[in-house]
Amino acid sequence: MKIYYLNGPNLNLLGSREKEIYGTAKLGAIAAMIREQASGHNIEIDFRQTNGEGQLIDWVHEITEQDSYLVINAGAYTHTSVALRDAISGTRVTAVEIHLSNISAREEFRQRSLIAPVCVGQIGGFGTFSYLLALEACILLEKQRIAALQTADELD
Amino acid sequence: MKIYYLNGPNLNLLGSREKEIYGTAKLGAIAAMIREQASGHNIEIDFRQTNGEGQLIDWVHEITEQDSYLVINAGAYTHTSVALRDAISGTRVTAVEIHLSNISAREEFRQRSLIAPVCVGQIGGFGTFSYLLALEACILLEKQRIAALQTADELD
Amino acid sequence: MKIYYLNGPNLNLLGSREKEIYGTAKLGAIAAMIREQASGHNIEIDFRQTNGEGQLIDWVHEITEQDSYLVINAGAYTHTSVALRDAISGTRVTAVEIHLSNISAREEFRQRSLIAPVCVGQIGGFGTFSYLLALEACILLEKQRIAALQTADELD
Amino acid sequence: MKIYYLNGPNLNLLGSREKEIYGTAKLGAIAAMIREQASGHNIEIDFRQTNGEGQLIDWVHEITEQDSYLVINAGAYTHTSVALRDAISGTRVTAVEIHLSNISAREEFRQRSLIAPVCVGQIGGFGTFSYLLALEACILLEKQRIAALQTADELD
Amino acid sequence: MKIYYLNGPNLNLLGSREKEIYGTAKLGAIAAMIREQASGHNIEIDFRQTNGEGQLIDWVHEITEQDSYLVINAGAYTHTSVALRDAISGTRVTAVEIHLSNISAREEFRQRSLIAPVCVGQIGGFGTFSYLLALEACILLEKQRIAALQTADELD
Amino acid sequence: MKIYYLNGPNLNLLGSREKEIYGTAKLGAIAAMIREQASGHNIEIDFRQTNGEGQLIDWVHEITEQDSYLVINAGAYTHTSVALRDAISGTRVTAVEIHLSNISAREEFRQRSLIAPVCVGQIGGFGTFSYLLALEACILLEKQRIAALQTADELD
Amino acid sequence: MKIYYLNGPNLNLLGSREKEIYGTAKLGAIAAMIREQASGHNIEIDFRQTNGEGQLIDWVHEITEQDSYLVINAGAYTHTSVALRDAISGTRVTAVEIHLSNISAREEFRQRSLIAPVCVGQIGGFGTFSYLLALEACILLEKQRIAALQTADELD
Amino acid sequence: MKIYYLNGPNLNLLGSREKEIYGTAKLGAIAAMIREQASGHNIEIDFRQTNGEGQLIDWVHEITEQDSYLVINAGAYTHTSVALRDAISGTRVTAVEIHLSNISAREEFRQRSLIAPVCVGQIGGFGTFSYLLALEACILLEKQRIAALQTADELD
Amino acid sequence: MKIYYLNGPNLNLLGSREKEIYGTAKLGAIAAMIREQASGHNIEIDFRQTNGEGQLIDWVHEITEQDSYLVINAGAYTHTSVALRDAISGTRVTAVEIHLSNISAREEFRQRSLIAPVCVGQIGGFGTFSYLLALEACILLEKQRIAALQTADELD
Amino acid sequence: MKIYYLNGPNLNLLGSREKEIYGTAKLGAIAAMIREQASGHNIEIDFRQTNGEGQLIDWVHEITEQDSYLVINAGAYTHTSVALRDAISGTRVTAVEIHLSNISAREEFRQRSLIAPVCVGQIGGFGTFSYLLALEACILLEKQRIAALQTADELD
Amino acid sequence: MKIYYLNGPNLNLLGSREKEIYGTAKLGAIAAMIREQASGHNIEIDFRQTNGEGQLIDWVHEITEQDSYLVINAGAYTHTSVALRDAISGTRVTAVEIHLSNISAREEFRQRSLIAPVCVGQIGGFGTFSYLLALEACILLEKQRIAALQTADELD
Amino acid sequence: MKIYYLNGPNLNLLGSREKEIYGTAKLGAIAAMIREQASGHNIEIDFRQTNGEGQLIDWVHEITEQDSYLVINAGAYTHTSVALRDAISGTRVTAVEIHLSNISAREEFRQRSLIAPVCVGQIGGFGTFSYLLALEACILLEKQRIAALQTADELD
Repeated sequence: MKIYYLNGPNLNLLGSREKEIYGTAKLGAIAAMIREQASGHNIEIDFRQTNGEGQLIDWVHEITEQDSYLVINAGAYTHTSVALRDAISGTRVTAVEIHLSNISAREEFRQRSLIAPVCVGQIGGFGTFSYLLALEACILLEKQRIAALQTADELD
Repeated sequence: MKIYYLNGPNLNLLGSREKEIYGTAKLGAIAAMIREQASGHNIEIDFRQTNGEGQLIDWVHEITEQDSYLVINAGAYTHTSVALRDAISGTRVTAVEIHLSNISAREEFRQRSLIAPVCVGQIGGFGTFSYLLALEACILLEKQRIAALQTADELD
Repeated sequence: MKIYYLNGPNLNLLGSREKEIYGTAKLGAIAAMIREQASGHNIEIDFRQTNGEGQLIDWVHEITEQDSYLVINAGAYTHTSVALRDAISGTRVTAVEIHLSNISAREEFRQRSLIAPVCVGQIGGFGTFSYLLALEACILLEKQRIAALQTADELD
Repeated sequence: MKIYYLNGPNLNLLGSREKEIYGTAKLGAIAAMIREQASGHNIEIDFRQTNGEGQLIDWVHEITEQDSYLVINAGAYTHTSVALRDAISGTRVTAVEIHLSNISAREEFRQRSLIAPVCVGQIGGFGTFSYLLALEACILLEKQRIAALQTADELD
Repeated sequence: MKIYYLNGPNLNLLGSREKEIYGTAKLGAIAAMIREQASGHNIEIDFRQTNGEGQLIDWVHEITEQDSYLVINAGAYTHTSVALRDAISGTRVTAVEIHLSNISAREEFRQRSLIAPVCVGQIGGFGTFSYLLALEACILLEKQRIAALQTADELD
Repeated sequence: MKIYYLNGPNLNLLGSREKEIYGTAKLGAIAAMIREQASGHNIEIDFRQTNGEGQLIDWVHEITEQDSYLVINAGAYTHTSVALRDAISGTRVTAVEIHLSNISAREEFRQRSLIAPVCVGQIGGFGTFSYLLALEACILLEKQRIAALQTADELD
Repeated sequence: MKIYYLNGPNLNLLGSREKEIYGTAKLGAIAAMIREQASGHNIEIDFRQTNGEGQLIDWVHEITEQDSYLVINAGAYTHTSVALRDAISGTRVTAVEIHLSNISAREEFRQRSLIAPVCVGQIGGFGTFSYLLALEACILLEKQRIAALQTADELD
Repeated sequence: MKIYYLNGPNLNLLGSREKEIYGTAKLGAIAAMIREQASGHNIEIDFRQTNGEGQLIDWVHEITEQDSYLVINAGAYTHTSVALRDAISGTRVTAVEIHLSNISAREEFRQRSLIAPVCVGQIGGFGTFSYLLALEACILLEKQRIAALQTADELD
Repeated sequence: MKIYYLNGPNLNLLGSREKEIYGTAKLGAIAAMIREQASGHNIEIDFRQTNGEGQLIDWVHEITEQDSYLVINAGAYTHTSVALRDAISGTRVTAVEIHLSNISAREEFRQRSLIAPVCVGQIGGFGTFSYLLALEACILLEKQRIAALQTADELD
Repeated sequence: MKIYYLNGPNLNLLGSREKEIYGTAKLGAIAAMIREQASGHNIEIDFRQTNGEGQLIDWVHEITEQDSYLVINAGAYTHTSVALRDAISGTRVTAVEIHLSNISAREEFRQRSLIAPVCVGQIGGFGTFSYLLALEACILLEKQRIAALQTADELD
Repeated sequence: MKIYYLNGPNLNLLGSREKEIYGTAKLGAIAAMIREQASGHNIEIDFRQTNGEGQLIDWVHEITEQDSYLVINAGAYTHTSVALRDAISGTRVTAVEIHLSNISAREEFRQRSLIAPVCVGQIGGFGTFSYLLALEACILLEKQRIAALQTADELD
Repeated sequence: MKIYYLNGPNLNLLGSREKEIYGTAKLGAIAAMIREQASGHNIEIDFRQTNGEGQLIDWVHEITEQDSYLVINAGAYTHTSVALRDAISGTRVTAVEIHLSNISAREEFRQRSLIAPVCVGQIGGFGTFSYLLALEACILLEKQRIAALQTADELD
């Protein structure tokens, strides 16, 4: 099992600026925390960040394994990128949308998520815990997928 | 530590009707699952359901302990009840909004959550796992709160 | 065959106030008229009124028989209650939406019916006749349902 | 007593195409059914269909008798024709708007009926039964009109 | 000089119904009044009415003379017919839009005139006087056109 | 003369939470203040609070005396309850809408009051003084009503 | 009979600037033309211009004679001044709204006239002829008023 | 203590026109009533009216005393004047917005008050009583202010 | 194979007026060009024009052959006719929407095509070439249809 | 060369109230600063302020010299005055719109500038520096104009 | 003659995923098909794909030859990229917008094309045939351009 | 002191295409002009252009010095890029938004600037002078910052 954590624009600033909103943890520290947590479950973590919309799309296209999951914090592209939405729906990867802050309590233009409808679900507002909860979510979803496969096998 | 799971209108139908959307687990089974999971962490679970908006508000008002959390699946009231929103913001309880389905992928009028801005965060789209992830979220938030208190104590 | 006539908020005022809009018949008189008309067709009539949204939802949940029908005059909840809509769609009862007045000719905010899309059809604007026509509609729908069942039986 | 059943654009396709939406009954069969039902009540039925907006308006203008009723299924003109609305309100005929399908459950642009505010009431969603229920409605309205006239006579 | 008075849907009802809104003059009487007034100025009047949108367009296409004017009371098509607008702008006839009633004081959907932007000007709200004032307007416009032609001639 | 002070959702929290917005006076203290002030004018005060929309409506229905007044702080239902609006307009009680805070200076969704159009007037933004001013308003309105009755009597 | 021609902001620029839009006639020349035309009908013309909204309102208040008419070219205040609208409706003067240009063919914010609904009618798009046609309109309206008065007298 | 009663456009018409809406009391009579009522409380009343937006703003700027209050009936400028709003917020005067009629029950464009958010509160719909209640409100607010000052003094 | 080219309102003006927008080719010349081009492919061309909405619908209903195609330039009805849309979807003909001009670059109300969603595709902006490209498109679609049929035959 | 600095409503409050938003410089001090800066460039400065919309328009009309420029801080009229816009476009003066604060970061209704489209450009958000930068802008524009005139002269 | 086929985000997925929507042909196969078809006409084809908005813009800037054409399938950037629109309008290349699917029949946010107004025309909904038809369109446009040049030459 | 001039999409076309809108100066020439002007003030100028949104964001992140300023002409990204906005607000750089043209006078979708609210101010509409005025603005802002620092030092 492999989980791609793709981080969008400005998330590289995490922990160094606007700490009162996004907290003090740097993105590298979050990646380390996730990797440590995942190591106990034999899960490979691919953790990346980019400010480029096209780069994000390229990375989504890379995900092709059956037991892969996408955890995506698309930053501002959440609200503007139809192209990213199409990348997720086009590759049919199982995706979990995450946010550090509670976007519902922010500006009007952050209320709409273009990628939410093509994800399985959303987790937002828990700061760096959002990343941890998404890991938990992927583990649960994968267990469910395998259980369903076994049931199908037994029925054959 | 105590967590209130308050469930809004029509969630009593869970598992008996519209199973293709909401799954086959009945609300009682979910409560049992949460209680079992919580018992290992010494957490008290108060799990309720009502179809009444006023009843939901009354229940929110009952939450007064410092180490209490509210996990709320307000069902359709999510989209229409300013009164419920005021109840949560008025009591200042730490609240987590959950949904079984991915409301972003449903009708336009389900896109807006009136209670989201007064919750800490949202978890939605993971079926009954949304309930489990919310438990996890509350545990993490409580750990953080206690750690902050200890830091404050040490500073004194 | 059983038909539930559920009446929403303020319909208890019928016949005693605002007679120029809603006519002089009291709700009890309408119930009596419907019961009399139904008795000839061997139809049980369950006729109720409440001002509570939650109560209306509870009552919708009570309808579980295969040959039951719901005739609903949801009053003002027609325009505001997503929860009531979910109750009807969740129970999958065959529902007929009725109104005494012609809501299309009234205030803008009465133009939208949240429950209409989850009902079979609507009858509105005929005063107390709307209740009678709904009875007629249910009888026709039940005949059609039984005819279809018989056709299916014969095909087996 | 005379009832005009005026059918608007594309209703001539009824029963031959899109049967899964509108059913298998052809418009002629519906006319026959209505005429048969009406014959027992000594009601003259004038049943027509046209694809032309101007033609529909011309026909509405033809209705001048005091004891005439208009049952109108304006098809798509329901949503676009202010001219048809003005024809109905201009002639002050007692009109009943009908629809085969439940337009509330269809596209956004079918949600608004321009003619509804100038009709007595609406009946929609019951397939060909909508035509039958409208007949019933007209009979009830005519009875009421005559009763009112008699009351007025007695008062003189 | 020739002036086409084209009248749209429901204007044939004029003077016989809804007299409190549109007055008691029948369309024929208005035509007679206009013809009488015009006769003194050696102006040919072509006065017509139709309920058909296509018919109105056909008639607009008929206007090809340089010294022709179109006075149009498009009735309800004023608010819905892009096709009529295109007919007027396509033929480049000098057009004057008229209305009997003050449409600004009526329903919201009557506030927008699709044909106004392709007319020279509008005259509305003066009842049958609107027809007379439009005649006056055309006479003034024609005088201005001829004066401009003469000026151009003198300059050559 | 009798005045009903009906208080809607979350007003029971008054004085114990969110004191910086709503002040420190508890609802009971306000009731006492109003009763004291009213006692000098021989006015009966019926002061209640509920979180239930249906309950509020039931209470409005209770008001039937000619010389009764309704002072209503509907809380969040101000903005969402068409049913409460219908209750007030249906009973035709003379109603005064009050608010503690200045709702015009708060969130967009609090700008619209559904009940305002069916009340005589509004008083808002004066904290607990809003309750006192409403009392004053009712006294003035009652004096005016009695003066008008006496004038009518003298004219007979 | 007296007609007030009130001209709003920037109309003093007429004829000296933006001639391609508004023509070359100065406001004084228009006044002269109107006065000349009116002199034959024994009509007093009061012709004014101001850039001040308050001044315009003051002037409207001055109109109190029964046989007075207001011809108003409110310029930009047409689209923004509720106060001017209230002045016209408050004084109940018979008003005719005029415009030099065809405002329907200009910017979106010029499409809405706030004063149109409180005027008898509108005349726009005919350049300086709009002023002449308004004179004609007032004469016709006054004739009609006097005829009605005479009819009433004869009926007494 | 001094209270400025500033009245906006068209309020000079009060009592002489549109009496069915605004009552028969002239503005001078209201001023007299307020002055009489205020004299017992040793309050100076400055009561003015203007139709000019700029004049209203100039007057608001005049208010500089600490114990001054502004009672403002801005008439139509309530809905259109951002400049007046800025005058009130810029001078930081304690302001009470009043209206004679219930603006919530009137045209859509009267629903929005631009000045409400910068006032302490609103009182509307009580006819001339609105002026009296505003006086009462100012007295209560001043008492509160003085009490707060005394408390602060005692704390020193 | 047969292709119906149906042309809507004002297209009869083509080539004689507004040449700078629509070019100089008359509709007859276009028909000739299409027929010539089609003759080489053994395709029957039925080329018509009408200004009537009802007539257009009647013509769409005429298309019943399996290997027929509809190329439709609905002119202004593109933007207003739900009835035409229903005619196309009701007959399930394979339709190609064409336009001479680039409607995306014109007025706002021409941006929305009501018939586009029920056509296979659109071709617009190429002047008379749009007609030629639509012919090409139909030939390609028919080849594809026949290829699919042959594949199906071979599979049997 | 002459530059008119016209200041709209409430700018006379500058420096005495709301200093945290608009700074501590009084309008007179700004005028002095501008005059000093301009004196070195041989530029005449006409610096005025008014709260009246009509007054502002009158002043704009005064500007008629070829080498004049208008620097306008229209205050709240920026967002509401179509009349001011027309004054600027009507006189065709070269205008520069300035603002002290960054209006983009303030209330929604301050986002739209009605006068911006008829100005050459905007400078906003720099406090009193906005006035200085506008001076700089006018100097640059005048240099450009003179250079263009010289080029034209040389070409002759 | 040279044609640039520029393909935007996610079009590299073509033929490998979501085949039921976009068909089974890979982008490479389409390029080959176009090249083959073009080779007979001596046309150079430059066929590219990128997920990057900036890259697309860079490529558009590369097009500078007089006889070059741009066929662009901008994918999701069609609906969001003003920058791409500006690139096309800035370079003034003759552009044809194409789409595989019928975007009119998809989500609301796909209804608006930002680049359509700066293209000559659109072709959409024909699957891979859209690419072929665009080739045809470019050939026709080039023939027309050359014919126009020759006409101009002959006129010299 | 260092100023970053970051230029967004299509600004590399400057001076070579669409000269009638943006002038004939190439971006390089503007950079040279700015550098020359800045050299006298001992200011380092970093002048760049890119068509990539991600690249722009990367560049904004590079700005970390206390005495740095950002002058940004974001081109079309001004209207669509929430990510760029977040980059500016995230780095808290002092930014000045500039535009060559007066965007207020262009298409509707260019009216909204997403980055304006996170900049200090805007300068637009002055062609290449906008770049010069922004330099002036930065110098003024830096002087003010240093003066404030010195004041603070003196206070210590």
